[in-house]
Amino acid sequence: MQKQKMPIRTGEEYIESLRGRNLKIYLFGELVKNYVDHKMIRPSINAVAETYDLAVREEELATAHSSITGQRVNRFLHIVESAQDLVLQNKMQRKMGQNTGTCFQRCVGMDAINSLHSTTFEIDEKHGTKYHERLLDFIKMVQRGNLIIGGAMTDPKGDRSKTPAEQEDPDMFLHVVKKDEKGVYVTGAKAHQTGCINSHWIIIMPTVRLTENDKDYAIVGAIPADVEGITYIYGRQSCDTRSMEDGDIDSGNSQYAGQEAMMIFENVFIPWDKVFMHGEYEFASMLIERFTCYHRRSYVCKTGLGDVLIGAAATIADYNGIPNVSHIKDKLVEMTHLNESIFAAGIASSYSAHKMKSGVWLNEDMLAQVCKHNVTRFPYEIGRLAQDIAGGLVVTMPSEKDFRNPETGPMLKKYLVGRKGVDVENRMRVLRLIENMTLGRNAVGYLTESMHGAGSPQAQRIQIGRQMQLGYKKKLAKHLAKTSDVDEDIKPEPSDYFKRVFKISNIEN
Amino acid sequence: MQKQKMPIRTGEEYIESLRGRNLKIYLFGELVKNYVDHKMIRPSINAVAETYDLAVREEELATAHSSITGQRVNRFLHIVESAQDLVLQNKMQRKMGQNTGTCFQRCVGMDAINSLHSTTFEIDEKHGTKYHERLLDFIKMVQRGNLIIGGAMTDPKGDRSKTPAEQEDPDMFLHVVKKDEKGVYVTGAKAHQTGCINSHWIIIMPTVRLTENDKDYAIVGAIPADVEGITYIYGRQSCDTRSMEDGDIDSGNSQYAGQEAMMIFENVFIPWDKVFMHGEYEFASMLIERFTCYHRRSYVCKTGLGDVLIGAAATIADYNGIPNVSHIKDKLVEMTHLNESIFAAGIASSYSAHKMKSGVWLNEDMLAQVCKHNVTRFPYEIGRLAQDIAGGLVVTMPSEKDFRNPETGPMLKKYLVGRKGVDVENRMRVLRLIENMTLGRNAVGYLTESMHGAGSPQAQRIQIGRQMQLGYKKKLAKHLAKTSDVDEDIKPEPSDYFKRVFKISNIEN
Amino acid sequence: MQKQKMPIRTGEEYIESLRGRNLKIYLFGELVKNYVDHKMIRPSINAVAETYDLAVREEELATAHSSITGQRVNRFLHIVESAQDLVLQNKMQRKMGQNTGTCFQRCVGMDAINSLHSTTFEIDEKHGTKYHERLLDFIKMVQRGNLIIGGAMTDPKGDRSKTPAEQEDPDMFLHVVKKDEKGVYVTGAKAHQTGCINSHWIIIMPTVRLTENDKDYAIVGAIPADVEGITYIYGRQSCDTRSMEDGDIDSGNSQYAGQEAMMIFENVFIPWDKVFMHGEYEFASMLIERFTCYHRRSYVCKTGLGDVLIGAAATIADYNGIPNVSHIKDKLVEMTHLNESIFAAGIASSYSAHKMKSGVWLNEDMLAQVCKHNVTRFPYEIGRLAQDIAGGLVVTMPSEKDFRNPETGPMLKKYLVGRKGVDVENRMRVLRLIENMTLGRNAVGYLTESMHGAGSPQAQRIQIGRQMQLGYKKKLAKHLAKTSDVDEDIKPEPSDYFKRVFKISNIEN
Amino acid sequence: MQKQKMPIRTGEEYIESLRGRNLKIYLFGELVKNYVDHKMIRPSINAVAETYDLAVREEELATAHSSITGQRVNRFLHIVESAQDLVLQNKMQRKMGQNTGTCFQRCVGMDAINSLHSTTFEIDEKHGTKYHERLLDFIKMVQRGNLIIGGAMTDPKGDRSKTPAEQEDPDMFLHVVKKDEKGVYVTGAKAHQTGCINSHWIIIMPTVRLTENDKDYAIVGAIPADVEGITYIYGRQSCDTRSMEDGDIDSGNSQYAGQEAMMIFENVFIPWDKVFMHGEYEFASMLIERFTCYHRRSYVCKTGLGDVLIGAAATIADYNGIPNVSHIKDKLVEMTHLNESIFAAGIASSYSAHKMKSGVWLNEDMLAQVCKHNVTRFPYEIGRLAQDIAGGLVVTMPSEKDFRNPETGPMLKKYLVGRKGVDVENRMRVLRLIENMTLGRNAVGYLTESMHGAGSPQAQRIQIGRQMQLGYKKKLAKHLAKTSDVDEDIKPEPSDYFKRVFKISNIEN
Repeated sequence: MQKQKMPIRTGEEYIESLRGRNLKIYLFGELVKNYVDHKMIRPSINAVAETYDLAVREEELATAHSSITGQRVNRFLHIVESAQDLVLQNKMQRKMGQNTGTCFQRCVGMDAINSLHSTTFEIDEKHGTKYHERLLDFIKMVQRGNLIIGGAMTDPKGDRSKTPAEQEDPDMFLHVVKKDEKGVYVTGAKAHQTGCINSHWIIIMPTVRLTENDKDYAIVGAIPADVEGITYIYGRQSCDTRSMEDGDIDSGNSQYAGQEAMMIFENVFIPWDKVFMHGEYEFASMLIERFTCYHRRSYVCKTGLGDVLIGAAATIADYNGIPNVSHIKDKLVEMTHLNESIFAAGIASSYSAHKMKSGVWLNEDMLAQVCKHNVTRFPYEIGRLAQDIAGGLVVTMPSEKDFRNPETGPMLKKYLVGRKGVDVENRMRVLRLIENMTLGRNAVGYLTESMHGAGSPQAQRIQIGRQMQLGYKKKLAKHLAKTSDVDEDIKPEPSDYFKRVFKISNIEN
Repeated sequence: MQKQKMPIRTGEEYIESLRGRNLKIYLFGELVKNYVDHKMIRPSINAVAETYDLAVREEELATAHSSITGQRVNRFLHIVESAQDLVLQNKMQRKMGQNTGTCFQRCVGMDAINSLHSTTFEIDEKHGTKYHERLLDFIKMVQRGNLIIGGAMTDPKGDRSKTPAEQEDPDMFLHVVKKDEKGVYVTGAKAHQTGCINSHWIIIMPTVRLTENDKDYAIVGAIPADVEGITYIYGRQSCDTRSMEDGDIDSGNSQYAGQEAMMIFENVFIPWDKVFMHGEYEFASMLIERFTCYHRRSYVCKTGLGDVLIGAAATIADYNGIPNVSHIKDKLVEMTHLNESIFAAGIASSYSAHKMKSGVWLNEDMLAQVCKHNVTRFPYEIGRLAQDIAGGLVVTMPSEKDFRNPETGPMLKKYLVGRKGVDVENRMRVLRLIENMTLGRNAVGYLTESMHGAGSPQAQRIQIGRQMQLGYKKKLAKHLAKTSDVDEDIKPEPSDYFKRVFKISNIEN
Repeated sequence: MQKQKMPIRTGEEYIESLRGRNLKIYLFGELVKNYVDHKMIRPSINAVAETYDLAVREEELATAHSSITGQRVNRFLHIVESAQDLVLQNKMQRKMGQNTGTCFQRCVGMDAINSLHSTTFEIDEKHGTKYHERLLDFIKMVQRGNLIIGGAMTDPKGDRSKTPAEQEDPDMFLHVVKKDEKGVYVTGAKAHQTGCINSHWIIIMPTVRLTENDKDYAIVGAIPADVEGITYIYGRQSCDTRSMEDGDIDSGNSQYAGQEAMMIFENVFIPWDKVFMHGEYEFASMLIERFTCYHRRSYVCKTGLGDVLIGAAATIADYNGIPNVSHIKDKLVEMTHLNESIFAAGIASSYSAHKMKSGVWLNEDMLAQVCKHNVTRFPYEIGRLAQDIAGGLVVTMPSEKDFRNPETGPMLKKYLVGRKGVDVENRMRVLRLIENMTLGRNAVGYLTESMHGAGSPQAQRIQIGRQMQLGYKKKLAKHLAKTSDVDEDIKPEPSDYFKRVFKISNIEN
Repeated sequence: MQKQKMPIRTGEEYIESLRGRNLKIYLFGELVKNYVDHKMIRPSINAVAETYDLAVREEELATAHSSITGQRVNRFLHIVESAQDLVLQNKMQRKMGQNTGTCFQRCVGMDAINSLHSTTFEIDEKHGTKYHERLLDFIKMVQRGNLIIGGAMTDPKGDRSKTPAEQEDPDMFLHVVKKDEKGVYVTGAKAHQTGCINSHWIIIMPTVRLTENDKDYAIVGAIPADVEGITYIYGRQSCDTRSMEDGDIDSGNSQYAGQEAMMIFENVFIPWDKVFMHGEYEFASMLIERFTCYHRRSYVCKTGLGDVLIGAAATIADYNGIPNVSHIKDKLVEMTHLNESIFAAGIASSYSAHKMKSGVWLNEDMLAQVCKHNVTRFPYEIGRLAQDIAGGLVVTMPSEKDFRNPETGPMLKKYLVGRKGVDVENRMRVLRLIENMTLGRNAVGYLTESMHGAGSPQAQRIQIGRQMQLGYKKKLAKHLAKTSDVDEDIKPEPSDYFKRVFKISNIEN
């Protein structure tokens, strides 16, 4: 475990903080020794490091005053104290997306501690437990140390028609296998864990609604990333090995990338003071719903990536000498429109937040779903339009090595010229960036993770379905159509979205 | 002119206030004598009346405390004093859309006085004129009387390749033809004027950017709707005459409808104290841009209509006995998703407002464009899905008279039955409502006006294009692609959208 | 019953042939006496009449040599003898759509006799019945007389979760209530029957798959439209009464319109020689599937309407003086692309036909579904784009009467001017045509009927689902992915689409 | 040059035929010696080889009787003699796409010889040249040897606002730099040449409309792929190096891939008997238009890839245990619908072919554009839906090496289990195939090449625009709207699409 005396301040210090830890990481069938300097892994570390450097450069945007520690803390570690705080999360996320063009991996932890803030409070309220206090202690510690928290939610799930307790193999969902006076021991796995290896601490959480039989699966707790018993198996990404080639062109974005790995837990120990739920199965769905409410709106980060891709498309149009051709301009407008539609839904959700019993603020759920659901569609169309503008060269361009070769280099420089005054290497670089974001390493984050992260499209549709208040709307229609059964449908509905919409103020709860 | 001693309080009082005015209205080639009780026109009056009744029933939503008069005033007459005020406009608009299922005609005036508030202030600042004070006097008067203000902007335009002054016929744009010590006299026309006949006062405004030669066209002023010299020619709507038939089923929405008319001005007098711009041509585009910024976001009203249509589709699915069929449910979710995407963009624009020099707040322009641009698309798709769910009967159903006929009535009741327990008349009513909103009278407002009101799609694309800051985005891309020309593009851009996005607070200007 | 001595040749003769029949038609709660000259009904008759006139003007396109009668017959009455015959149906349908801008009502009958040709043959083959011979006699008679056949399929259906025999009210599906030596007697209703009143003969057919209990519902037969016992109740269409107003502008398309009515059958007699199925319930689904296979491809007619609407949009752009503005041109290209995508799927289905045992040809079912499914989407988008190009005036334009009024007429001519040289009345006419096709009377046919005619979207999705051969495709994928279970999935599939696709020739069956 | 005595019959023989040639190929900055066995290149060779093996296995589909040689020849080398021949090309293309899941590279040559057939005939007709005869000799030779022909069209283009002759560097378009009694010598380059290295012969053709000044650029001729003076620089593809890793899982499709390379020509000699155009600049656009007419319809091949991807998605849904979940099924239906929409447009274009003067048949141009334009859209949506169904694991799955590792292998097998009975390796294989087609190596062909091959979307829009006959359509609209200017627009139009549509037969020219 990382023993941090002084808080981490800069990206550089963060990278240093990762050294010397004893993580068991497998990549390409081998144990990785020095993962910090591994050429394929490093770009993912750089992306996290930028969350530190941004906080230094743009303090107001990327830090906040925490009433828990009384200090200014990195915004990723901040418990939100207002709707404005949620909006600022979105703005920081967009900026981070702009600066890295990838997934910077720190949102899951942020959304986890915020959703735990209200959930632990309400568990304690019902059960007289002490989870909230423990959580606050944990938050104090990470705020003071300025640490990275990863959130581990997605279990492998096995047979999806069965609950955790019904699975043939009980490990298909992470669960408590033993407990003693010091703490609990858990076994299982978490799939596609964003930034887990780059985290100092991991918070484990359940991923499905639980029943009474699933009590052992109702476990939330924090563990150091280098705790004994965890094996990390690194996930492959499209074009991942380009980061290991010489040169910095073909990777498209040589500095930044995302990270997803599989985590295998075998008897991993969590001391009691780091346990935030243990057996209160009926709160699993509350935790999940609040977490996804925060997290689906966190996908506003993709608008930052969208800004980069729009910029890349505009640059290549410029290099090709056709920035003002009407159909090109029109495509850039369409890309912008789609990108801003995502942003709008995200910040609308954040602005429409309300205060929870514990004091933390929660953004509007319906609009969070809408935000994420657009994220499962629009980046694909933005990517398609970027490829349209880029031209076929984006997938047929020779390698950087051919460009550096004394025989072929001059040929490429002669023939791959664009409009006058454009450096061919610059043109290659921007085409590779477009490839990177639409097919390559960061397409993983910009496209597929946009589809599946924080819940696949159907998950949002289910949530929208739950909150769409057809009873309320049917009454509106019947009233105008003057049917004789206007008042028949007055059944309780599983959502009070419209009550929130028409509340005059969201200041009070 | 309407001489209001006591403020109008209710819809009923409003309707009374319209009587006895001397408006010259043509409809179907004839002068309309008692327009208030005209069966085809009355539904449009009822829709405006609901803006009064809502303010009585839901005071917090539909009124506001005006620091101008120190009174609580109808929110449609309120000068917005915060971002929250703008958000509340959106919420009131959605509610009005829900309650009427049509265009309630009072937004143009609201957006006109708010955009004039800052524009007159800045004209005065430059030219030492007194427009702002006059405007405040006017606002006081209408707030106290609780009057309806219409805004008249769209000139017929003639040859669109020419400026106002260049037109063969100078009247193609409304302009000053004479002035004397009492005021100015204007001639010209305004096309498709929403709710003009239902207004007490009309504010005329220019509709295009003006040049020095167009000084006579740089005229803004307020006139009573029944001033001498105006001829109104009523616009036809799809299925408009159904409102004049007996019965209340076939019209679909018998109580509410929109109104658009053409106004012809011949030497219409405006006294100096009601003139708010006169010759300051360079402020025309500022006024237009601010007005469209408010007004494109005002199209959030259509989400209220969307709620009604979703409710109607859900009702008919229920009557047909198939509310839980998966593809029906999925279509209702999609309709909701699209509807809330519009809402999100609207309130995101309002929440992201900033304060102007005059003290009024202006919502975020980029997001207002995004909101309206989605309005030109999504209602059509929502309408298509509503027709899908409704089934073919929506366009083949016999008339109400056949339903009332003793011979055919029983046949229809026998054969048009849906699931058990559903009254056939109720089914007919809801189908007619769907027809009304997708093909009939209120399809005008829900579809075509969504397309063209506050500017056609291309107008939004131009504004998005102006604000998309490609220079800024190209720099982001070049930075990540590590091109050698990262800093070449630093030209001033016609927008500072991202500066606003990343501002920490929008409290100060 | 209509006693035709001489074959009908022209549209005029057709209109005459409709006179003097004794149909019981209700419209607006009253019995219609002279329906042929009824101003609201007549446009639907004119549309059918054009199927005669086209055959005179373009003989090769709209007639065919029938090997049944040995004569050249109207193509709508022709039993298709080749793939080329099916393609020519599509071409004739597009031309008819171009010429009328509406539904010309003669396809249902065409598709009914063709699907009955093979079905009766196969019933006879199994049951030793004589249906095919009777059908051929019937076809001879109608070919010789050149008569209009309507096809009546859609029953009201009542509770959709129940089969015909299970319904509480047995009349929810048309059924045999009595039979004697002369024939059978049927009772029930058929909803939204296209062109039924304009037909000489009606063929009744079942509308759902039947079980053994539903034998009485397994009835197919031909009846004269004026047979005793039928009550017609005319369906309302958007803006239908505009056809009854003076003038010919406001209706948009004063000459042509569609027709849908409800038919109520009470003990309607069908003589044995006109009965083509009676009790062979297991052939109901075969008949329905073949009918919908023909009919879903018949929706190619909508590309003719699309041509008209694209032409109208291009005309209004021209009148407005902006035909070459890039975004206008681009929208016209998009409209064309969508329209031709429909056409392509239709003729691809026809070209890919194969010969049935009876000798008739049947088009490819999968592609017929694809054709119709695009018809449920693209006309809505084409209509949306047409409204975009048209501008808001399409829904705010004053009436023709205002245009004719000596006071307001000159005002409108002055202010509604477009580019120089354009007659204002022409501009109004084209705007009204666009209104007609996107909101008005022919929007019923171009939009809503495109959605629901020949089966709603979900019906096509079910058919596509049945024919998509996932087993075959999974094998392709497994083969390339080299899984170990490549051959596991070889189960029989409910379709042999790919067998047909890869057949070298469709000449032999 | 390849000296073929015996015709190549099988894929294996084809691969042998490639050995021993002296091609100068650069890849990753190095000269490739044995390119045939290069692990990264070989999959592209295998794809071509399948064009031979298919012809052995399915003779009727993949060979044709050539009236030129009087033999049965590979269909890729066949001059089409009927509409049916064109349709069979499409069917063969779909089958090849199904069998390889990639671009099999042989269509460009096929479409080149067919478009040259009519073009050379018409050049000769005008200029009295002998190109057609030379071409027939060439075709005989390749048909007899069963050789691969590549077509080289796309020049680098330099400054796109300038013609070839106006370029600063004359080599921006391939051109004749010398001629003598033996032949001509050309210099320049061709970008992203599909399958060029796998070809025996390359046909060079101009890529833009030429003017009189561009005579030297009006050159068409055939050269052996290993002629002196050509340098090939291999294009990189997403994930290309995975083919060089051990194992066969991570590549997704280990056997097949596409190939694009850049060709640099320096004084490359073409003997006169292989020159098919030389200076007849006015025929360049005819050649290009006919080539793209054939080739845009050839993109029907992508429906074969679509079949594979739909199959892969269905397989993974099955492995996950959710094949019958309604939203999954619905997505598979949508994918199928889109895929078949492409197929329909392609075969509709082929079926609607007409015979040219030279005897070859040309498919319908408008529908070829429509086909290709849908190809620039639908595969992206099909890919998006495939990723939706696949789940996030498609981009986070560990490497095959981790799967083989004794420590991590069992962990992965334990935790990546799907429904009971599914082999984890099979699941990984299918996920990798989906990755391959949506992000990886064959996404290049399925997505980006679908966008840009045979012309980018805007190229199709321009062609659709040219052929949309607005004059004809405006007349239709004016006729129905009864405007007074119906006959004003009768100007000649640049297309006679509708004349072709309404021709009764396409048998005669």
